Amino acid sequence: MSKVFSSTKSAYLAGFLDGDGSIYVRLKPNKDYRYGFQIAPYIVFFQSNKGREKFEKLCSVMGIGYIRERNDGILEYVINRQAEIQTFLKAIYPYLVLKREQAKLMLKILEKKKMVKSQKEFNQLAQLVDQFRNLNYSKKRKRYTLTP
Amino acid sequence: MSKVFSSTKSAYLAGFLDGDGSIYVRLKPNKDYRYGFQIAPYIVFFQSNKGREKFEKLCSVMGIGYIRERNDGILEYVINRQAEIQTFLKAIYPYLVLKREQAKLMLKILEKKKMVKSQKEFNQLAQLVDQFRNLNYSKKRKRYTLTP
Repeated sequence: MSKVFSSTKSAYLAGFLDGDGSIYVRLKPNKDYRYGFQIAPYIVFFQSNKGREKFEKLCSVMGIGYIRERNDGILEYVINRQAEIQTFLKAIYPYLVLKREQAKLMLKILEKKKMVKSQKEFNQLAQLVDQFRNLNYSKKRKRYTLTP
Repeated sequence: MSKVFSSTKSAYLAGFLDGDGSIYVRLKPNKDYRYGFQIAPYIVFFQSNKGREKFEKLCSVMGIGYIRERNDGILEYVINRQAEIQTFLKAIYPYLVLKREQAKLMLKILEKKKMVKSQKEFNQLAQLVDQFRNLNYSKKRKRYTLTP
C-alpha cells in the first residue's frame, strides 16, 4: 500500500466501509495448498454502474485493489491482497463503528495464517473463519435441531 | 442539532452517507401550502434489521433524526428537519466524495426556500428540485423524443 491515509481519510473510509462495504473470508478447496484449502480474504465495496466515474476516483485515491463489473451492472471494488487488507484495516479500525468485530477477526485470522505449522493449527484457523459467517449473518438465524 | 462534529466524525459520516445514504427532496402536493406544494427534504440511511443495535448506536451519536422500520425489515434512519439537514451537510461537505453535488444542490434549495416571495420564485425553486432527480438517477437515462 503506497499511501498512509490521513486521519480524516481513514475516518471517511471507515464510514464508507460501514455503509457500503463487506469484509469476509472464504475457505476454498484447493489441492495445491498444503492443507487442501486456500484462505481467501476480501474487502468489497459496491456501487451501481451509474456512479462509475466517481467510484473510480474514490478507488484511485485508495491506491489499492481493483474494480470489476458484475453481469448485473453492479461495480465491485475488491481488495484481496493480504498485506493490503491488513494495512487498510489497521488504518481505519479506530474509526469503525458497525464492522469493528469483522475487522478485528480478519486481522486475527491473517496474523494466525502466517504461523500455521500443522493440520491441527490449520483446523483452529478454519474455526476462526467459521466465526466470520456468524458475524456477517444474522445472530438471530434459526438453527433447526432434530430431537428424537 | 446539539453537537458539532469533530473532523474525523464528520469525515466518517461523509463516508457513511456516500456508501449507504441518500439525499433527496420531494415536491408534495399539499393545499395547506401557499403555492400548493410542500418541499420535503430528506437524508436517509439504510440498514438491514440484523444490524439494529449498532445502527441505533451510530444514530444516537448523531443526535438528530429518527429510525423507522419498513415492512420488509429494512431500517431507515431519517433526517428530515430542515435546520438539521443544513447543519449536517455543512459539517460533512468538505469530506464528501460521491454525493457532493447532491449536498450542494440541497443546501442551495434550502437557502432559496426561505426567500420565496412569489409564484415565479416558487417555480424557479421547483426547477431546482427537478435537477435533483437528474443527479440521483442515471445521467445516461434514455429520453425518447417523438420526431415527425
